[in-house]
Parts: sequence; C-alpha cells; structure tokens
Amino acid sequence: MNFILFAADELAPDGRHLRLTGRRADHLHRVLRLQLGDRRPAGVLDGNRGHATVVALEADEIVLQVELDEPAPPPLPVTLVLALPRPKVLRRMLAYVAAAGLPRVILVGAWRVEKSYWDSPWLQPEAIRADLLLGLEQGGGTNLPRIELRPRFKPFVEDELLHIAAGSSAFVGDPEAAMACPHAVAGNLTVVIGPDAGFNRYELDLLAAQGCDPVHLGTRMLRVEHAVPTMLGRLLP
Amino acid sequence: MNFILFAADELAPDGRHLRLTGRRADHLHRVLRLQLGDRRPAGVLDGNRGHATVVALEADEIVLQVELDEPAPPPLPVTLVLALPRPKVLRRMLAYVAAAGLPRVILVGAWRVEKSYWDSPWLQPEAIRADLLLGLEQGGGTNLPRIELRPRFKPFVEDELLHIAAGSSAFVGDPEAAMACPHAVAGNLTVVIGPDAGFNRYELDLLAAQGCDPVHLGTRMLRVEHAVPTMLGRLLP
Repeated sequence: MNFILFAADELAPDGRHLRLTGRRADHLHRVLRLQLGDRRPAGVLDGNRGHATVVALEADEIVLQVELDEPAPPPLPVTLVLALPRPKVLRRMLAYVAAAGLPRVILVGAWRVEKSYWDSPWLQPEAIRADLLLGLEQGGGTNLPRIELRPRFKPFVEDELLHIAAGSSAFVGDPEAAMACPHAVAGNLTVVIGPDAGFNRYELDLLAAQGCDPVHLGTRMLRVEHAVPTMLGRLLP
Repeated sequence: MNFILFAADELAPDGRHLRLTGRRADHLHRVLRLQLGDRRPAGVLDGNRGHATVVALEADEIVLQVELDEPAPPPLPVTLVLALPRPKVLRRMLAYVAAAGLPRVILVGAWRVEKSYWDSPWLQPEAIRADLLLGLEQGGGTNLPRIELRPRFKPFVEDELLHIAAGSSAFVGDPEAAMACPHAVAGNLTVVIGPDAGFNRYELDLLAAQGCDPVHLGTRMLRVEHAVPTMLGRLLP
C-alpha cells in the first residue's frame, strides 16, 4: 500500500480527519510501522490526492489528518479489451489495470477462454472492486477503472468494438503478425489481447475487419499478464 | 506449454525420436489433448527449434518425431539487475525472463528487500532451473538465462556493475526521476529495477554514480512484476 485511499464519506465532518480500522489500519501499523507524525501519500476515491499525517495511533485504529491539494493523475488514453484470464491471473490483472491508470477494461470471451471462468466469484462486482482498490493503493490513482463483461465475442466485436475504437488507434496482439507493435503512438488507443493460448484465426480476422491492426511483440510468446504491460509500455508515448 | 522443450540426451540414438513421460507427457495428453499425427513447436535445450509430431500415444507416455531446422531466436540484448522479489513473485519473474529471452539476470539485495527472501528454497539452483524451463516452454526459446545472486548491494554496485554495464545504455527505474524512460534504445541495455517499495535514496545515488540513468514510467507506481515488462517494452526497439 503505497497510497492511503479512502471514500469521501469516511472523512470526519470537519473534512480533514480520517479514522481507519481493519485492513488499512492493520497494514499501516504492522507492515509500514507508521508512527505519530509520519506523512504518507493519500487520496480520496474519485477526487484529489495529497498527503495524510498520523495524528493518533491505537492498537486497532489510526487517525490521519489529510490534505488533498493535487488533482489525481489523468487516466491513460487506453481502452483495454482482454480475453478473460483464469481467476488467479484476472485478480492480478485487475490490480494492474487500476495501478497503471486504465479507465476502461472490457473482459471478453474467446474460443480458448474456458467457459467456467465466467462463473468465478472473483467476477462479482464487489470482488472486482476490492481488487481494483488494491491496485489504486499500489499505483496512487483515485479513479476506479470501469470493468465490463462481454462473454460473447462475436456480437461484442461486430456490434460494439467499432464504436469503442472510433477515434483511436486500435491494435491486437498476434504473435504471427507481420508488423511489430509500434512505439509511442499519440492519441487514444484501443488494445486487444487474447487468451494465453491466443485468439484463433477466425477471431483475429474478425478483429482485423473491425480495424484492429495485428502486431507482434517479438519472436517469443509472453503470458497475457506480461504481454499487456509490454504492449502498453511500447504504445504509450 | 506452447513449446515442447527437451534436453539433447533425451533423444533416442537415432537423433529423431523423443519419448516423454511425467509432467510434459501429462500436459500434452490431458491439457493439449494431442492426437496421433499432431504437430507442435519444439526445441532442444541450448540448440535449434522446429517441430515435433506425435507418432505414438499411450496412457503415460508419448513418442514424438522431431525436426529441428531453425536456429533459436537470439537472446534480447539486455542484462536485468533486479532486487530480489518475494518468492512467489520471484517464481513468476523467472518464468517471465526465460519466456522473454533475457540471457542474464542478477538478483541483488537492497535496503527494502527482506533478508529472509535469500533463504527461500525457490532460490536453489534446481528450483530456479525448473521455473526457467517453464518460461522457455512458454516463450519458445531454447537458452536458459544465467541467474546470479548478489545479496550485498553495495559491493555488487561498486565492484561489478560498471563492468556489466560497460558498452550498454544503463537505466534504473525511479518513480521520482525527472526523465521518462526512453523508447526504442538501440544496442545493449542494462536495466536495474528495485523492490516493490523502491530503492532508497542512497542506493539510487550509488547506481547513478555508476552510470545508471534514473528514469520513470509515468506518475503511477507499478509492481516490479509489471514494471519490468513495461520498461523492456519501452526500451527494446
């Protein structure tokens, strides 16, 4: 937890004091071993960020005085379309996208996505939210990404993707693409990444027909979890 | 397992047939559900890659005929110096560096690296090798990265780093750096990444004194596991 994140309604009526108990207090106490007077980066969900200073410490609670005088960093200009990964990887990806500052992620089905993944309890809205909050606490942003679920690939690509990608440069990761993923592309981006085993040829053709340029990341196959940051590292200016 | 990897001495005396049992046979049978005649990418450790065709299938073994007619992809021109992550993350990072094709990784101590991590059984040579092999099976390379352990940061940086970084562009990830990580840097690279909680100021100064340019990856803090592919995505042409 690099960053103390809280909801506006957690603030005391004076608008300056924050009383934490539970997971966050525990982490600040036992892992970060904060002392009276210590100052840490902090921010309010959907709002500003700044700093929080410890003004009272007890065994199971911690009171902080907060000063939020900076705007949150702007979201990255990227919409990520990601084939639903297995639940364990999904959880790390949710934390990653929140930490990285992506505003919108669309989880899609694909031929090589196990149907059972859609039944995972980690896709429940409150579970998704909890993983995203961990990511914001890591990255230092205050805006939760919007996560959308589209189990049916074909109608999503045919009916929605064109509108989502409009006005953006759209790319799909494809190890067999002729073109390497470009560097430092200005403007809005739509990035489509398949399952670990890849999209099938039909899916890649459908994506290409909707204007997604197939690009590779070299001669080796990376896992989705590492392909996404590699591709965003290349694409973002 | 995108790629069937084996050691030269596993081949039959005819040099063309490979009999697999255990983990790999199990995976090819039950996860990939290979059938007689199926053809998959394959390669020999430290040697060529090509394809393997299933010529016999039994409950607990599989016989493949291999044709290895392509050279393995060249290693990436990168030496990675990485503060030792916690064991669970270390294991994923080892698989990642092997999949990505890094030839050399030096795991170093740092102020914010827990001393106990050095006692992890996952740092035993045979455990490291097993995780690297999983990465090669993912990425499709045949060369194991060399993994070196340097628990003492200061002597490593003062006595070795300059020689390692000689003739390369050297960068250290530093969220407070003034300069953004550059894109598409030609030639050899040395990339230094600290622990999740960051190098301390003393460590960053020591690295800068040895010629490592501090660079940031944006206004947000990424976990090491995602910072490494993000930075390599940017730096590699």
